[in-house]
Amino acid sequence: MAGELTLKPIGIIHSPFTVEEGTPIQPSLAGGARGWVEVFPEFEAGLDDLEGFERVWLVYIFDRAGEERLKVIPYLDSREHGVFATRAPCRPNRIGFSCVRLLGRNGPRLEIGDIDVLDNTPLVDIKPYIPGFDSFPEVKTGWLDRPLPKKMGADSRFAGKNESSDK
Amino acid sequence: MAGELTLKPIGIIHSPFTVEEGTPIQPSLAGGARGWVEVFPEFEAGLDDLEGFERVWLVYIFDRAGEERLKVIPYLDSREHGVFATRAPCRPNRIGFSCVRLLGRNGPRLEIGDIDVLDNTPLVDIKPYIPGFDSFPEVKTGWLDRPLPKKMGADSRFAGKNESSDK
Repeated sequence: MAGELTLKPIGIIHSPFTVEEGTPIQPSLAGGARGWVEVFPEFEAGLDDLEGFERVWLVYIFDRAGEERLKVIPYLDSREHGVFATRAPCRPNRIGFSCVRLLGRNGPRLEIGDIDVLDNTPLVDIKPYIPGFDSFPEVKTGWLDRPLPKKMGADSRFAGKNESSDK
Repeated sequence: MAGELTLKPIGIIHSPFTVEEGTPIQPSLAGGARGWVEVFPEFEAGLDDLEGFERVWLVYIFDRAGEERLKVIPYLDSREHGVFATRAPCRPNRIGFSCVRLLGRNGPRLEIGDIDVLDNTPLVDIKPYIPGFDSFPEVKTGWLDRPLPKKMGADSRFAGKNESSDK
């Protein structure tokens, strides 16, 4: 079994958010924040026909998350849960994905709406959002079965020590 | 910038599918196929409270995908598209995610429905499916704006040379 994989960035995500505190915790709670994605030139050909999709998944590395934890108190609760039952960044493998709005493309540059990612985050993949594959509006959500807020920003509970010095 | 990340498996995905040909291309086209996930003991505590979620994202490595391509003819079209405008496995970073049905949990073992992943695939993350974050039923889907089939299996177009010898 090929058990490991080293991810190499294909680009960089740019956003107005430079520290975890105040960064939207999800695209749907981002209040329409704008950002952009810079795909490195050697990967630009892979973007062809992406512009027809209204939303895309950005897959990225939580490069400024604090140390790995298996139990966390997530932003949307006051109780502790297993990290795999949350979307907290301090996971064994620090991969995040966000379903953002694709507002436009200019060559290797993508204009993004509903961005919830820290500025300068390493991007490792882009996938089209396809409702037939990805949209399940009615499913049960365990500890989170209650209305979500309209907008919500993070605090610094999952920030790594190097977050501010990294800027 | 921390530009790279080496993923370490947290478990193994088990399914009835041992070669790419015939493997469902997505959970929603899997016809309810059953599988299970074995999470390694050292990560079991991270699963607490996952069982309340009806669907979960399995994040895994496409460990048997063929060589990287930036242009592909995906299963659902006869025309070529940029790989980032498709869900094909032969991507620069071979990460896949599937929104599967969580049927039950017994300690570190998860029973899975709608599985679309090859047997023995390395698992790197599990995240709860949260409609408020992940469900956008009405968005436009570019080249794929047409009804999807009810069920669809892969052929061997993205298989690596070692797929059969790997079994």
